[in-house]
Amino acid sequence: MTAPQKKLYGIIGHPLGHTMSPALHNSGFNMFSLQSVYMAFPTPPEKLADFMKSFRTVPIHGASVTIPHKETVMRYVDKVTPRASAVGAVNTLYWEKDLIVGDNTDVLGFMAPLKDKKNTSKKALVLGAGGAAKAVLAGLQELGTSDITICNRTLQRAEKLAATFKVNTITWDERGSVVADLVINTTPMGMAGEHVNETPYLAEMFTEHGVAYDLVYNPLETTFLRAAKEAGWETIDGLHMFAAQGAEQFRLWTGKKLPHDHIRKLVSNLLRL
Amino acid sequence: MTAPQKKLYGIIGHPLGHTMSPALHNSGFNMFSLQSVYMAFPTPPEKLADFMKSFRTVPIHGASVTIPHKETVMRYVDKVTPRASAVGAVNTLYWEKDLIVGDNTDVLGFMAPLKDKKNTSKKALVLGAGGAAKAVLAGLQELGTSDITICNRTLQRAEKLAATFKVNTITWDERGSVVADLVINTTPMGMAGEHVNETPYLAEMFTEHGVAYDLVYNPLETTFLRAAKEAGWETIDGLHMFAAQGAEQFRLWTGKKLPHDHIRKLVSNLLRL
Repeated sequence: MTAPQKKLYGIIGHPLGHTMSPALHNSGFNMFSLQSVYMAFPTPPEKLADFMKSFRTVPIHGASVTIPHKETVMRYVDKVTPRASAVGAVNTLYWEKDLIVGDNTDVLGFMAPLKDKKNTSKKALVLGAGGAAKAVLAGLQELGTSDITICNRTLQRAEKLAATFKVNTITWDERGSVVADLVINTTPMGMAGEHVNETPYLAEMFTEHGVAYDLVYNPLETTFLRAAKEAGWETIDGLHMFAAQGAEQFRLWTGKKLPHDHIRKLVSNLLRL
Repeated sequence: MTAPQKKLYGIIGHPLGHTMSPALHNSGFNMFSLQSVYMAFPTPPEKLADFMKSFRTVPIHGASVTIPHKETVMRYVDKVTPRASAVGAVNTLYWEKDLIVGDNTDVLGFMAPLKDKKNTSKKALVLGAGGAAKAVLAGLQELGTSDITICNRTLQRAEKLAATFKVNTITWDERGSVVADLVINTTPMGMAGEHVNETPYLAEMFTEHGVAYDLVYNPLETTFLRAAKEAGWETIDGLHMFAAQGAEQFRLWTGKKLPHDHIRKLVSNLLRL
């Protein structure tokens, strides 16, 4: 006869049109019969401070954080994990007693498939220098890859990241000249929508042997991954990172382990809709 | 592929141990396949101002309001309905464009079973002078009952209400002396828990013919109603008012009509647990 004490979770970002996170986490709550619900909270930048007050008041038990709040949200948390600090961005909020902790599960999400493959890259090439690239650089360094090169269509952004993470930089046009055993696309090139006909691919990238890793998961096989596969390279699609970062959020919030295959099947089905 | 835009609703009060409202409204959302969720938000008095800011920020699409916030919440709304104003208390928050409206569906909830019975009381006796009594007095006056007497164990509280609503008052011990055709128990006497062995009943109440109306719904048949029934009176149990006030909240929020029988069955089942 007591009230069902549902716990509230959600995602903040702006806009929030295409997020798969509500489907992922609600499906997890359902799988473990948890009295919880995960909602989309579209939050423009000027509302972030108010939202974070609401996070404490309501309270909201956990949140995913996406563009444009990943950096600015750090001002409103009580604690930042070393991983979030290394990236300079937070993608997950959770409570530790009465403190709000800002974490970044993208790092672990990025590393997960490489760890599964026991891949230890000697020389990695990172395409793009946006927010996702920061999690990738932090992840590569945590994995012990010492030779990292980054390139970006706007060189200045690559140079800025290169300075922060102490990695090498080359121009976008030179990207075929690096002989790497791991090439990671962190740009939106190849993603369904306005970028679908773009590709960061250059034939010269896939000489020798290596792993091509695309953070784009819609479509699952991008032009970049298809070219890598045809050149005999191993490939990792973006759904691996999405699933692993989401599973890590779910673990931080509930202590439960969401099976990778469950997430993969769920998101694949949604992508087909 | 867009995020499920669930709408958030809830109840604020303190404490919130025994509320049936989440079960009622979530069942309604389910019945009409609405992407909405109703949660318990236990809110101590010192947190009410913050909660109301969160109501605007998150946003929360509607809320039930219960003890101890029914009066104080009026400071934080943009508009108060005539019914809430007549009662001096708000039990429902909803949005009208970008304004928060405070309404009181207890009045309509109280009137509903009397309207169904086409009962037009000439002389009503109201037992108790707490928050519920105010909705009852407002409802009786809206129904056109002109001769109303109120009594309470603490006479002073009855006199205060009597002055506000311009009704008569008698002492608690005199309550058997009023020959009324409608007797309403608004006290918690007879309710499961610490009050279960109390009753506002006096044999003299049920002379002539009339209707006994108990706002208590747990148990459904209180000592008060049983005595009335045995004296040949009609009875109305508290589930009628609870169901009707809840159905009116649901209508204000969704425009949909929750069938009375559905609510009655749902709550009866929960009471049996």
